[in-house]
Order: sequence, then structure tokens, then C-alpha cells
Amino acid sequence: MKTVEFTVRTGGRPTVVDLTGELAEFVSGKGDGLLSVFVPHATAGVAILELGAGSDHDLLESIDDLLPADQGKWAHSHGSPGHGRDHVLPAWIAPSVTVPIVDGRMTLGTWQSVALVDPNGDNPSRRVRMSFLAG
Amino acid sequence: MKTVEFTVRTGGRPTVVDLTGELAEFVSGKGDGLLSVFVPHATAGVAILELGAGSDHDLLESIDDLLPADQGKWAHSHGSPGHGRDHVLPAWIAPSVTVPIVDGRMTLGTWQSVALVDPNGDNPSRRVRMSFLAG
Amino acid sequence: MKTVEFTVRTGGRPTVVDLTGELAEFVSGKGDGLLSVFVPHATAGVAILELGAGSDHDLLESIDDLLPADQGKWAHSHGSPGHGRDHVLPAWIAPSVTVPIVDGRMTLGTWQSVALVDPNGDNPSRRVRMSFLAG
Repeated sequence: MKTVEFTVRTGGRPTVVDLTGELAEFVSGKGDGLLSVFVPHATAGVAILELGAGSDHDLLESIDDLLPADQGKWAHSHGSPGHGRDHVLPAWIAPSVTVPIVDGRMTLGTWQSVALVDPNGDNPSRRVRMSFLAG
Repeated sequence: MKTVEFTVRTGGRPTVVDLTGELAEFVSGKGDGLLSVFVPHATAGVAILELGAGSDHDLLESIDDLLPADQGKWAHSHGSPGHGRDHVLPAWIAPSVTVPIVDGRMTLGTWQSVALVDPNGDNPSRRVRMSFLAG
Repeated sequence: MKTVEFTVRTGGRPTVVDLTGELAEFVSGKGDGLLSVFVPHATAGVAILELGAGSDHDLLESIDDLLPADQGKWAHSHGSPGHGRDHVLPAWIAPSVTVPIVDGRMTLGTWQSVALVDPNGDNPSRRVRMSFLAG
């Protein structure tokens, strides 16, 4: 297995960060196999969705709708407002996704990108692990 | 890795389509390994749930509850009513799932099926990729 | 592929059960590869989240918020109150997750644990399958 961790700038507010370019470069030339994308953080997830046409904004809004940041709501309530909510997120939007690789390319559809979903503005950067298992 | 894409008829309305038969046939005789089920579309997901006892209907209803189709709500607002919602869905119900295979059979529980979840009635058919990594 | 199913005590009420210890022991000494964690039940999921600081409680509460147990709501309505809801859960919190293994260790972040999410109090125990594909 080939495996690499890299750092993504996420800034100081909730964000959806495109990982597709780094992932494509990582699997390039590696033949067929499975790519695991894994975020080793307890307040972030990974998603496959269309980016750049408003859906990244819509996703962050749906997170606020479904898992409101309201601090009083959550038992896990230390830290910045919304931190308790951020800790529930990865159960719903998992920090792990698998993408099939054929001939060194992700088999994504035309409108699919792979993104880090980070509702937590406290960390200016995040780690992402890419692992390729050939087959 | 063995990998095959096939087409599923999804018709003109939101639907949950059973993929279990195609997947079982694909892994039959292939020994032990991991099966990746991947949908290369930006407005659909894959789920493992019981089918045929009402939960497919319940799932579509829960999607309407949690991610309302209301067109005014979403920044991504071109296309048919609900299209913006459909683009958020795969972040919550991912288009990728992995199933362990033992002796050419999926290790599903008695009541589990693998299904395509498609809230988008604009596409009468969808593609699904099955990939088997032996181990 | 190395694959083992084991039994987890879940008791008679909704619960989030830490699986991290069993998984760590299973992959210990196995080198690099992908670990699949799979629950062969139609009313449970698997999640990666921080445990022991309130988020397990918060997760169960978010399940009640988003997928209310109210029996009248669901078409799948046999069994105990909430059983219809329990059958929708795995579409949102999948019963399958993959974790990269490096040198016999899960590449989890400091605050991540792997947990069984079981809203269904009718089954006092559950099965979990661990599968390791070396690479």
C-alpha cells in the first residue's frame, strides 16, 4: 500500500475544500486499485459532491440546519460555539471514503469532486491521508 | 482488481433501487476480498438497508424531511425543482460503500440489501461501478 | 484477507459502543493495508467520532432529532416503537467504514474512536466483522 498524509489549509471559518487535484496526482500512474481518503480529525468529514456551483455553500447550510451549532444543545460543550456540533458531524458525514481507481485515474463522474468538509473554524489547517491499495 | 460498470433503470421519480442481485452475481466465485460499490453521479448515493418492508419509502421521506426539495432554499438552483437538494444528498448519503466478501459471497446480514438512492427524477438511468479487490 | 466476526454487548437501550480496542488488537502486527469494519445488521451503523466527552450522547440525541422514533411516521411500523426509524438509520449512518492501517496500527487521529451506533434496544448483542486486506 502506498500511503501519504498531506496538509490542507482550511482557514478560520466553516469550509468545504476540494481535494480532487491532490488525489488525482497521487494515483496517477498507479494502475488499478482502491483509493482510501481518510481525515484523522474528530470534527471533519469527507464528501463526494459537485463543487463550484453553490452546493458547497448549500452543504454548509444543511449542516447548520440539521446539526445546529447552538452551544446549549450539546453535552460536549467546551471550546468555541459549535464545537459540540462539530463533534457529531463525522458520524453523519464520515471522515473516510473509498474511490475505485482504474488505470491511474479516479472513476469519478463528470460532476463529482472529493472534498474535506470542515465546520470547525478553530483549526487553520487539517491533515488528509491518501492510501492506494493495488489490485 | 476486477471492475465493471453497469446501468440501472431509475425511471422519472425519486427511487431506491436494489443492487444486491447484480453485486452477488459479480462477486460469485471470486473468493475473499473487498467489494467497492460506487455511483459516478453527483445526485445519488448508495445505502445498505432492508428493502421491501417500507423502509425504502421511509428513506425517501426522510430525505424530503431533512433536505427539503424547496427550490428557493438552495444556492445551486438551476434545473428541476429539488435539483439543488439532490446535489447536497451525496455528502450525507455517500455514493460509495465497501462490503467484505468471503468465499464469493457478500457478508450481508439477513435483512440487508445494497441499494442505489436516487432522489433525482431527471435521469431515467444511472451507472453503478462494482470493483473487487482480492486478498 | 483476514476476516473475523465478533459479538458486542449492546444492552436494551440505544447505545454507542467503542470498538477501537478490538480493532486495534485485530490489526496489530499485520503491516500495511485497509481495515473494513462492517455491521451485518439492518438497524445499526458504524461511526468514527470522539467518545467519552459527551459526543456519544449527543449523537444519539441527534438521531432522535433527525429521525424521530415516532411510530406513526414510518411505513415500516412493526415491532417496538422506533423500529421503523431504526431501519432508516443505516442509510444515513452507514454500517460500513474503512480505516487505513500503517505498520499494524490504525491511522486514527488523537480524538477518533470507531464505534457501533445502535438505536435499537431490542437486540442485547450485535455482530461486527473486521476484515484486513494487506497491500
